[in-house]
Amino acid sequence: MRPLALTMGDPAGIGGELTLRAWQAWRSGVGCFVAMDDPDRLRRVAQDMCLNVPVTTVSTLDAVASLFGDALPVWPVYLAVPVRPGQPDPKNAAAVIASIEQATALALQGRASAVVTNPINKAALYDAGFPYPGHTEFLAALTGATGKQIMMLASPALRVVPVTVHASLQRSIQMITSERIVIAARTTAAALQQDFGIAAPRLAIAGLNPHAGEQGALGDEETTIIGPAIDELRDEGLDVSGPWPPDTMFTAMARARYDVAICMYHDQALIPLKTLDMTHGVNVTLGLPIVRTSPDHGTAYDIAGKGIADPSSLIAALELAAQLAARRVVAAGGQPDLPG
Amino acid sequence: MRPLALTMGDPAGIGGELTLRAWQAWRSGVGCFVAMDDPDRLRRVAQDMCLNVPVTTVSTLDAVASLFGDALPVWPVYLAVPVRPGQPDPKNAAAVIASIEQATALALQGRASAVVTNPINKAALYDAGFPYPGHTEFLAALTGATGKQIMMLASPALRVVPVTVHASLQRSIQMITSERIVIAARTTAAALQQDFGIAAPRLAIAGLNPHAGEQGALGDEETTIIGPAIDELRDEGLDVSGPWPPDTMFTAMARARYDVAICMYHDQALIPLKTLDMTHGVNVTLGLPIVRTSPDHGTAYDIAGKGIADPSSLIAALELAAQLAARRVVAAGGQPDLPG
Repeated sequence: MRPLALTMGDPAGIGGELTLRAWQAWRSGVGCFVAMDDPDRLRRVAQDMCLNVPVTTVSTLDAVASLFGDALPVWPVYLAVPVRPGQPDPKNAAAVIASIEQATALALQGRASAVVTNPINKAALYDAGFPYPGHTEFLAALTGATGKQIMMLASPALRVVPVTVHASLQRSIQMITSERIVIAARTTAAALQQDFGIAAPRLAIAGLNPHAGEQGALGDEETTIIGPAIDELRDEGLDVSGPWPPDTMFTAMARARYDVAICMYHDQALIPLKTLDMTHGVNVTLGLPIVRTSPDHGTAYDIAGKGIADPSSLIAALELAAQLAARRVVAAGGQPDLPG
Repeated sequence: MRPLALTMGDPAGIGGELTLRAWQAWRSGVGCFVAMDDPDRLRRVAQDMCLNVPVTTVSTLDAVASLFGDALPVWPVYLAVPVRPGQPDPKNAAAVIASIEQATALALQGRASAVVTNPINKAALYDAGFPYPGHTEFLAALTGATGKQIMMLASPALRVVPVTVHASLQRSIQMITSERIVIAARTTAAALQQDFGIAAPRLAIAGLNPHAGEQGALGDEETTIIGPAIDELRDEGLDVSGPWPPDTMFTAMARARYDVAICMYHDQALIPLKTLDMTHGVNVTLGLPIVRTSPDHGTAYDIAGKGIADPSSLIAALELAAQLAARRVVAAGGQPDLPG
């Protein structure tokens, strides 16, 4: 059974304590993971939190499955300076980056089944010369991914894909084009078929304006941009509906009619997702040659080191990564090596 | 006990059947209402829907409370032409308007305790020369209301007040000013104190941009517009917090910390409200001299006359109107005439 590779994330954030708690939750299950982290700092975190988590180092992934029930296996990535919770230090940026690089290399080699990333602090990495806007672009470069990477957020209640993400609302509106919508929807449909086991995925495309523009009275992006994108996607044979009035498309009755909502901007996607389920949202990067998930929260410096961080989203990210990786193995003609 | 005055709304919509079902739900309770409607058309709707609702006309409101348990009391407002469900007719616009006028007059005279409005079709009224953008502006004119009227949407899970409402998302962003936010928040705080019985209301002000702008990286409206409005409201002694990241402010944990969310645009308010509770949302107009509520849905032409419309939102609107009216009576030193 191949392990998942779990990155360190920003060591000043809550990643370490989440990793320890995720091991406690997973140790008696059937899946396993390896932490790409500094074993000494994880031992300190365990001690500070009074968490009974034995930590052991590994230099090959072959042994991970057999020893996972007894100790947290750690692929050593050593920090340069000690960690103060809540206070990111650019001197540790190299280790944060190395953790992502080595996890990705193990996944590309097929030795790890997928990559799950703990939250990073972009500002601390920028200060150390990190040239990528975030995790996703870095992973695309590391894996030689061509085309566009798309962020999906998935919880038990809802899957959403925002067409625009980290830009002001004003700028997001300007960034919405038919091409962006088509690429996001096409990438999403392919991922739902290949990795999520949905043979004929149903995509619901959101409008941008109140009441989806009310026939142009409240905005025309539905007729000039979103409608043409829907036509193009239908011509490709995809099961696409919309543009839907944004305020009524996330009710339980509406959600039953689609497998994913393609949303026009960050909060149109994230408000319903987090309102419905704050703790089990998982970020999935579509369009990479490897499976990659992450929790849908940040470093949470304000509670780092206090032992109160909720590991639910990281655990959900590990579980979803295991499911997606198992489907890829089956699709490739192999035996699933992780529970579906 | 003074009755509520319930308007006809568009007779081609679902208003008539909702009125009949609301009477069935209320007949054995302690509150009562009078329908400002055409008694013959209500009898036809009852017959078509196989609803056992005796309809009786009244020419004074004094008798409504005593006869409400046996029949639906109707203050006659006669239609000009027969109704075809789903097909609005401008020839009936005069009756639709008269129903609103007479309900408002009864409330202003203190004979009705509040006005509850069934959904209208604005286009059909515009065709007949109706000069107001909608219900709210018409009621403001009829009641001689000065200042700004503010729309609140309330459900058991959440109260929201959108600062901008029926405009494109692009236009809504342009309309957001510190003054609009201050007026909306101030009016809301006063209404929560006077009508909702919340002595020291806690107002949560939403950001506009993802992550509330992330210190300017994702937009600056939080620092240039929303922050100054919050400062001004605090100077007035109000309990105001924010600007909050929009995606995390509607979780159950976050909602426990405030009494109302002041939102920047329509869908920021309506997506969480309807996602959490599609059927019990009520529209309350703040800043009028009378109490006015309405269901938070439209005429629903597509299902009009089919007998499948859900009366939950109208019933919730009647219940909330009764509660608010009772508090106004108490605040004025009288005995509450409806259950709180």
